Amino acid sequence: MSGFDFDAPSADKKILEEGLAFTPKFDDHGLVTAVVTDARDGELLMVAHMNAEAIALTLDTGIGHYYSRSRAKIWKKGESSGNLQTVKEIRVDCDQDAIWLKVEVAGHDATCHTGRRSCFYRTAQLADGKPSLEIADDHRHFDPGDVYGH
Amino acid sequence: MSGFDFDAPSADKKILEEGLAFTPKFDDHGLVTAVVTDARDGELLMVAHMNAEAIALTLDTGIGHYYSRSRAKIWKKGESSGNLQTVKEIRVDCDQDAIWLKVEVAGHDATCHTGRRSCFYRTAQLADGKPSLEIADDHRHFDPGDVYGH
Repeated sequence: MSGFDFDAPSADKKILEEGLAFTPKFDDHGLVTAVVTDARDGELLMVAHMNAEAIALTLDTGIGHYYSRSRAKIWKKGESSGNLQTVKEIRVDCDQDAIWLKVEVAGHDATCHTGRRSCFYRTAQLADGKPSLEIADDHRHFDPGDVYGH
Repeated sequence: MSGFDFDAPSADKKILEEGLAFTPKFDDHGLVTAVVTDARDGELLMVAHMNAEAIALTLDTGIGHYYSRSRAKIWKKGESSGNLQTVKEIRVDCDQDAIWLKVEVAGHDATCHTGRRSCFYRTAQLADGKPSLEIADDHRHFDPGDVYGH
């Protein structure tokens, strides 16, 4: 664990929104939403969650760390695949319950576990009045079977 | 309410991730995360939540609708301020629990209730080992007091 804690968010909306104290507003599970974009061109790569430790590790090391809800532990993104994220800038939103990370992706330049650059590889629309998807990006930068094991 | 429901997400990961059925994976509160970027240049404008009705209304009308957790109701973004969002493209992520909307913002070209273009107007970093914020964008496109009332 890193050597600092976050102060609790101010109940004063003006301080929370206009102040310069970084006081993440964690939800009931101790998490905030993390939005990760490519620092090169702004492409949305993934949406994840961070707890206090993940934010602290990210600030300390400059490498993107998250909290995996499915595995219930800290997740150093890219540790298995080599697609580590160097964080170029961190931003926080008005009420401090969402964090934006602009990153450079190492390795295969791919963020999705399916091998694609971004997790957002499908568009959604109505087709004949029914919600449906279309593949927008089907290029696999790596073979998930090779990288994560079969 | 719109005239369609969403099918439940498949338990088969391959169908969920590679299929063309739009089956949002709602959380225990019936919500998915919505990431909203500017269709012009990819700037992250806001993070919000959508329930099934908000997604349906957005698909039906082409205007961004969300679910306001604080007000516990559907929220047509910009209804008070005039900063309505015309949705140019919708994407969904691999496990279908996050949605990306690329939008054009009308009115003041501002999305944050503080009057700024984006809710993410502050950067976060360590300063002397302490997490702190800096203002990255302080330009107000409108006066919140004028728009929302004092």
